[in-house]
Amino acid sequence: MKLVWFLPVALLIVTQVALGSNNGNNGLDMAAQRRAANIHRMDTIILLTYVSVMVVIVVTAWAFKHYRLRFIHESGVTLFYGLLIGFVIRYFGLGLLQSQTFDVETKNKTVVKEPPDYLMLEVKPEGGSSVSFHYELIEGFFADKRKKIEQQIEQKSVFSPEVFFNMLIPPIIFNAGYSLKKRHFFRNIGSILAIVFIGTTISCFGTGCLMFVFTSIFQMGYTFKELLFFGALISATDPVTIISVFNDMNVEADLFALIFGESALNDAVAIVLSEVIENFSTSSEAITLHDFGSAIAGFAGVFFGSLMLGFGIGCMNAFLTKMTLISEHPLLESSLFVLISYISFLVAEVCGLTGIVSVLFCGIAQAHYTYNNLSDESQSNTKHFFHMISFIMESFIFCYIGVSVFVTNNQRWSFSFLLFSLISITASRALFVYPLSWLLNIRRRPKIPKRYQHMILFAGLRGAMAFALAGRNTSTENRQTIFATTTAVVIVTVLVNGGLTSWMIEYLQIKHGKDAIEEGQRLENSMSCSRGEQHSDLEETIPVTMAPGLNPWDKAFLPRKWYHFDASFMKPLLTHATPSLEQTLPPFCLPITSLLTSSRQRADETSSFDSE
Amino acid sequence: MKLVWFLPVALLIVTQVALGSNNGNNGLDMAAQRRAANIHRMDTIILLTYVSVMVVIVVTAWAFKHYRLRFIHESGVTLFYGLLIGFVIRYFGLGLLQSQTFDVETKNKTVVKEPPDYLMLEVKPEGGSSVSFHYELIEGFFADKRKKIEQQIEQKSVFSPEVFFNMLIPPIIFNAGYSLKKRHFFRNIGSILAIVFIGTTISCFGTGCLMFVFTSIFQMGYTFKELLFFGALISATDPVTIISVFNDMNVEADLFALIFGESALNDAVAIVLSEVIENFSTSSEAITLHDFGSAIAGFAGVFFGSLMLGFGIGCMNAFLTKMTLISEHPLLESSLFVLISYISFLVAEVCGLTGIVSVLFCGIAQAHYTYNNLSDESQSNTKHFFHMISFIMESFIFCYIGVSVFVTNNQRWSFSFLLFSLISITASRALFVYPLSWLLNIRRRPKIPKRYQHMILFAGLRGAMAFALAGRNTSTENRQTIFATTTAVVIVTVLVNGGLTSWMIEYLQIKHGKDAIEEGQRLENSMSCSRGEQHSDLEETIPVTMAPGLNPWDKAFLPRKWYHFDASFMKPLLTHATPSLEQTLPPFCLPITSLLTSSRQRADETSSFDSE
Repeated sequence: MKLVWFLPVALLIVTQVALGSNNGNNGLDMAAQRRAANIHRMDTIILLTYVSVMVVIVVTAWAFKHYRLRFIHESGVTLFYGLLIGFVIRYFGLGLLQSQTFDVETKNKTVVKEPPDYLMLEVKPEGGSSVSFHYELIEGFFADKRKKIEQQIEQKSVFSPEVFFNMLIPPIIFNAGYSLKKRHFFRNIGSILAIVFIGTTISCFGTGCLMFVFTSIFQMGYTFKELLFFGALISATDPVTIISVFNDMNVEADLFALIFGESALNDAVAIVLSEVIENFSTSSEAITLHDFGSAIAGFAGVFFGSLMLGFGIGCMNAFLTKMTLISEHPLLESSLFVLISYISFLVAEVCGLTGIVSVLFCGIAQAHYTYNNLSDESQSNTKHFFHMISFIMESFIFCYIGVSVFVTNNQRWSFSFLLFSLISITASRALFVYPLSWLLNIRRRPKIPKRYQHMILFAGLRGAMAFALAGRNTSTENRQTIFATTTAVVIVTVLVNGGLTSWMIEYLQIKHGKDAIEEGQRLENSMSCSRGEQHSDLEETIPVTMAPGLNPWDKAFLPRKWYHFDASFMKPLLTHATPSLEQTLPPFCLPITSLLTSSRQRADETSSFDSE
Repeated sequence: MKLVWFLPVALLIVTQVALGSNNGNNGLDMAAQRRAANIHRMDTIILLTYVSVMVVIVVTAWAFKHYRLRFIHESGVTLFYGLLIGFVIRYFGLGLLQSQTFDVETKNKTVVKEPPDYLMLEVKPEGGSSVSFHYELIEGFFADKRKKIEQQIEQKSVFSPEVFFNMLIPPIIFNAGYSLKKRHFFRNIGSILAIVFIGTTISCFGTGCLMFVFTSIFQMGYTFKELLFFGALISATDPVTIISVFNDMNVEADLFALIFGESALNDAVAIVLSEVIENFSTSSEAITLHDFGSAIAGFAGVFFGSLMLGFGIGCMNAFLTKMTLISEHPLLESSLFVLISYISFLVAEVCGLTGIVSVLFCGIAQAHYTYNNLSDESQSNTKHFFHMISFIMESFIFCYIGVSVFVTNNQRWSFSFLLFSLISITASRALFVYPLSWLLNIRRRPKIPKRYQHMILFAGLRGAMAFALAGRNTSTENRQTIFATTTAVVIVTVLVNGGLTSWMIEYLQIKHGKDAIEEGQRLENSMSCSRGEQHSDLEETIPVTMAPGLNPWDKAFLPRKWYHFDASFMKPLLTHATPSLEQTLPPFCLPITSLLTSSRQRADETSSFDSE
């Protein structure tokens, strides 16, 4: 087996060849050792490739920011680098790699009806006794007619969807929740929820139906379920690119809140929708009323179950940090914070709920309650930690999407399907943006102006979540087409819409830069959200002593109820905020409330009492 | 295939079973989907188990610190939790898992002499056309007589050594370099290097020879090479436990520097030694003089090559951060810092050098140069980021070592081998500590007192690195015994030596707490290293304007030369420190030096000139 080198590091490797070439033993031990060494080298080279590209991306991102280049966005550049690397690996890297593949059959020649998890092969080295080796089924990796030589490299440079869902996506979503501009977010919560729930559902079914019409006309052989699944996954819009442009340009805060809120939350809706659609009974192709009813119930159960779970775990952590003195040890405190946040994802997944929804609301709860209890050091640590991790993961995913175009085996390209998709998703997005805005504007005080509506339509970029959902199951040809199309839609929207965002902002005469800041300050004195970094206002999101009812924008019944409950029960219970539970709850609860009041709360209350 | 649940989360899973049970299609697509779902659940449960244990560990660590419990250390507790989890998985978790294994042979019945990388098995579903499925060889996973049912769970809850070496170890070692107390470290550099290079080599060969004597007497059938390999890997002492105790107790800074320096650097020596021993030509069992010569050359090449590479990459990053204005964007700056640090590891591995050595010296260079150029935000970010990551990784590794005792298949226990090992490693450690200290004391100004020597002997705890090295190759029975013995040595030393460290400090009358701080302040006015957190003095490690030669402790020729070179060339080149290159280099270099001087340096020089 030759050494693995498919990148121009050959020269540097010479040292190692000289050092390692005196491995002269034959036998299985040596073969195993050589294989381990090869795999290690391969893993390392692929990791190095990705990390190097990331370095280039960071430097490029800096240069773009520094020289104020706006014709193309960082995500676009990242995608482009990914495509380049994928191209190199595909056409220059593959020939230099050798791996052996044997056709096998079962020993007693029984016909296998379902692929087993493991195979055992007896190997007899020359002059040695036979040893059995274990082989594991490679997940989602089906044989096709391409050269066998290419398979190992695909297997290596392509991550399993598991890695995506367990490792890369959670920190991004958590950061979205943790760095939410709560003030503007909650001011627009009604509109955001309407867009997220009703809009995403319309988009899902709209895309599914339109695609069904197109594919039926051209007899492309897709079932309605498959197309509905496609509709669900492609409805997840991506916050990364658009938010980054908006931040750079200081766009009006309300528009920012609407678009950020939609793209952060509809991932969760899309993932739940696609899971519900996947779980439709597929023995009959038709979708019955019963299916539909159970789907709605399942949807509600999964969504709100995940929401409660994540929020609950966030509150639990707030309670833990309040009642213990762990803030004396910021290192332990930050570690606990990170671990508990990740647990909210894992517990939801183990329970069959949706980790993404859970981790998002855990992030919101952590920002709302726990953040207040943390030591100064941990506040800054956790904020920057998640911001950085999220940035790195996002860059990685965009790079990876580019690589996957050339490297993966499980994408089947269909230009007509792509064309129909682009038409369908634009049409079905328009189908909910304008009618929904009209409906909302009936009661909404600052109405959603037409230019906002156009911008929301335009901001429907697709990203990591759609890609990950599509890549999760590529076992049939139709699904491979869906995966390839999703990849293409991501690339097209990120490059075209992402690149044209700043131009579009100018064209639609949306306020940005100084104008938007002045406008914001005029509207509300205490408002300071439009200046710069997405989460720079975390500190001011907890209006500790703000009395309920003083807030100008909570007019609706449910928000008002929640606000009151939050101020009089949740915050005193979970944070060091005053007034404490001893003040807000009736006196007969005193035995319990005194237990739940921290010494810091008592001290704060006494001092404020003194100063009065 | 039943659902996978081996932890008491059964109740919570019921929801999912109810939701997912209407998957009623037969055929390969459904089988693949079910398999993917099962694997996802399994991965998630195992991750959840580990993360939950980590949360418990953090809370326990806090409780131990808060209530000042010292009879057992956190690492010990972590190990204990790991053992507990391993026990539960082993005896309660395995029965609930089902996987299918088939015996196979090649289609044309040829005898296989070396295990191929992939197998292809044809599967014929009922009423469908046949599909070929790919199987990959499971690395280092050899069949034995245990029930097949246990294999999947082992495969899942045990990480490959690759994950250890590529993911878990690098941040720990980088953090060791980045958070080094440079002042004390460099004051003791001569003694530390002597202990690290000569000491570790003596320990390696001493252990190897002693073990060879023991095993020959009892005819246990080990080759000298195997035992030498064991000697090399078991010579890597672990900084985690001992440093954490020392920090808590504020032990004298010189002793701290000696023990930390040894344990941080000898990992690198042990890894290089073990690799060199592995690469000995094994066709003849005897080690020839030629082998020995090439081993020495290889050792030097690999060690210093890695050192230069890591240091060079660190300097490159310093130069990059100095010459660009990336510090305007702290997020990009921190990300770049993290990525470049990781690259120093990967490049070394790809070049066949040692990533650990490289990443350690990259850390030192980053702390020495780059740190000075970073924005305030990035300084604090990177410091805390690596501190936290390193803490989490360490806890995870200790937990994992505990789990591996019960779960892995590739450990073979031999009580007599363990007993001989404990005797050998203690003896060979004594064999270098006392003679080397005597030799060093001939010229060393503040001599190493006897109580330090006893403490160094006692502080020979083993940890992650020894474990990871031993687990890398377990293809033969002897190697499996070595792996099991290493695990046991880690557990014994962490529990016994780690638990008794604070008692030992009292017993040997080593100054700690207030005494040590006063002693330190008496010795040196500007010294402030003994107060608290391991890296709290990062800020003061760059004495920007300290003139060469003023430092009381650089007496030796080489350190003095280096110090001069560093102050007059490296620092002005790589950081914003003054005097700039324009001042330190001869005037004829001006065209180049003016390019390499930053505006901040010029401004600083002008202002200091003005104030004079």
